[in-house]
Amino acid sequence: MTFSFRLTATDGAARAGEITTAHGVVHTPAFMPVGTQASIKGVHHDEVRASGAEILLANTYHLMLRPTAERIAALGGLHTFMRWPYPILTDSGGFQVMSLTPLRRVSEAGVTFRSHIDGAMVELTPERAIDVQILLGSDVAMQLDECVRLPAERSEIERAMKLSLRWAERCKRAFEAAPPGRALFGIVQGGDELKLRGESVRALADIGFPGYAIGGLAVGETQGVMLGVVAETAAALPPERPRYLMGVGTPADLLGAIARGVDMFDCVLPTRNGRHGLAFTRFGPINIKNAHHADDERPLDAQSRCPAARDFSRAYLHHLFRAGEALGGTLLSISNLFYYQDLMAGARAAIAAGRFADFAGATSEQWIARRDRRATEV
Amino acid sequence: MTFSFRLTATDGAARAGEITTAHGVVHTPAFMPVGTQASIKGVHHDEVRASGAEILLANTYHLMLRPTAERIAALGGLHTFMRWPYPILTDSGGFQVMSLTPLRRVSEAGVTFRSHIDGAMVELTPERAIDVQILLGSDVAMQLDECVRLPAERSEIERAMKLSLRWAERCKRAFEAAPPGRALFGIVQGGDELKLRGESVRALADIGFPGYAIGGLAVGETQGVMLGVVAETAAALPPERPRYLMGVGTPADLLGAIARGVDMFDCVLPTRNGRHGLAFTRFGPINIKNAHHADDERPLDAQSRCPAARDFSRAYLHHLFRAGEALGGTLLSISNLFYYQDLMAGARAAIAAGRFADFAGATSEQWIARRDRRATEV
Repeated sequence: MTFSFRLTATDGAARAGEITTAHGVVHTPAFMPVGTQASIKGVHHDEVRASGAEILLANTYHLMLRPTAERIAALGGLHTFMRWPYPILTDSGGFQVMSLTPLRRVSEAGVTFRSHIDGAMVELTPERAIDVQILLGSDVAMQLDECVRLPAERSEIERAMKLSLRWAERCKRAFEAAPPGRALFGIVQGGDELKLRGESVRALADIGFPGYAIGGLAVGETQGVMLGVVAETAAALPPERPRYLMGVGTPADLLGAIARGVDMFDCVLPTRNGRHGLAFTRFGPINIKNAHHADDERPLDAQSRCPAARDFSRAYLHHLFRAGEALGGTLLSISNLFYYQDLMAGARAAIAAGRFADFAGATSEQWIARRDRRATEV
Repeated sequence: MTFSFRLTATDGAARAGEITTAHGVVHTPAFMPVGTQASIKGVHHDEVRASGAEILLANTYHLMLRPTAERIAALGGLHTFMRWPYPILTDSGGFQVMSLTPLRRVSEAGVTFRSHIDGAMVELTPERAIDVQILLGSDVAMQLDECVRLPAERSEIERAMKLSLRWAERCKRAFEAAPPGRALFGIVQGGDELKLRGESVRALADIGFPGYAIGGLAVGETQGVMLGVVAETAAALPPERPRYLMGVGTPADLLGAIARGVDMFDCVLPTRNGRHGLAFTRFGPINIKNAHHADDERPLDAQSRCPAARDFSRAYLHHLFRAGEALGGTLLSISNLFYYQDLMAGARAAIAAGRFADFAGATSEQWIARRDRRATEV
């Protein structure tokens, strides 16, 4: 099975489509739950699948250090190892190197860092990042890039963007060793500088990739700045290729980015916030740890198709968090994963029906309506 | 529905039977997973049910402090609150008062203790212990008793046993306020003193309960001492009533106690050990954190009906523990809960077939056979 993408509908800049991979089809706009260490934190794979997820993201950085890419390859690859027979996208490891390692040195060759696990010095070159992702067996691999935290000097953003372009070429060459049916995405960099973003898009499109990611956002800038960059970047990318906005975001971020032409997302928010007691619902976010939930017999959402959101009372969920029971975080994580998938399904249907703007408007109005009600609810 | 018990088969001292409650039938020998705070730690109720559990245990001590019995009653009772529509047994809170509270004073009236949650002074009398369990809506409530940690002086064991008998009478009187269909069990005390155990059994039988627990064991004595006390105590208890050995134990403890006439068990071992990386299997215990599992493609038990035991490789489970992923503890807890339930189902079938001794012998031989193989496996 060759990797392919086809658009099935457009509505303004918003797009619906289908990505075909060797491990199955992904309907876009798609949200990818994050399985950092080959596990969606606190949630059984079966629940992740039941939520509607068609593709997972796994972190190259974590897996290359533990249990190692070579071990996973010897055990049959990541799909077999973690028992997720559906599509998997892996990042390149670059972002985690920048954000997690206590000591690192970026050079033309790549990045050298100290492992946060055992302190060993590790080198991650573009070629090694690709080699690791080939060993893992990812359906979609990402080029190694350098991501700059914002705000940053223009010169620094430009240097990192240009280095990322040179790494993109090396990654593409290295990826020629990959078995057929797999895809490598290039990553647009350029921070909040629209001119640099444009330059990055053009250069990546010249190299040529089956898909393009927009990297280096959600790293400290406002939502307005982010969506502005997304709009310009997405509009400049080849329309026949999928567009993936990395590490984003809140439900509102997702709707905003879909409206601007993004097809794919990944984010830890549904599970991280779930573990911390924050539920995403049709009625906006609910902090289940708040005292006023202690006697509330209502579920998070009686109309949800998610059993965790529909079948347990807020009082019980509140109790689980107060009592420190891990099941609370698990149930909210599941509920959030369902909510994100349902949001994507709603977006896909709305785009197909040519009414995405209405859908996005009605969805956010319902979030806000609930916030207005809160004072009386408490 | 009235609470009732009927024996369906006996094999030597071993018994198979059926307990009928307002929330369903429990087949004995039965193992009750422990839902201390209205949650089986780290495991979704649906998995607990799928394991074959027909009854849960919940802790009165924890629930009376948080979220409080009154709140649970206002929310419809424990079955509704935690969404477990099947039978529930609650302990009396006495054991946790003895083991968890930093400060406590036992008197004829009851026990006064400092809450481990907020430091408030709380009084637990026999009447209050029953009141709380009625509020929770337990199918099976337990009398308040005083449990003495072994070894202890005979005089101390005797004093606590006699106090527990007087509390048994008060609990029985208080339980007259319970709605119909619920049952209150008396608890045999007497430590490792067989004469005191006999005295406790006779006095409790004179008071008359629909079921009897054997308390005060698995509190520091050897397995031999425990099984000796169990044998004598079970033999002296009214044969037409269910017998519940509290807080026990390992798979070997369960087989030994079933052989001596015990019908019901509860223990945190399947979930606590699961969280710590210890899997109970047909081949004996497996410590999944051991390095030699890192490359092992085999599941815990390819023949298990438990997906967690059957579908994930030991290498993946090992990785989850090494990486600190909560899913590891969840999967091993589920696997252990299935193992305990399958052990009980096997015991019931063997008793019905009149071959319990063979079953127990073959089961423990398989545990040992694996231990012998370990040196070569590593």
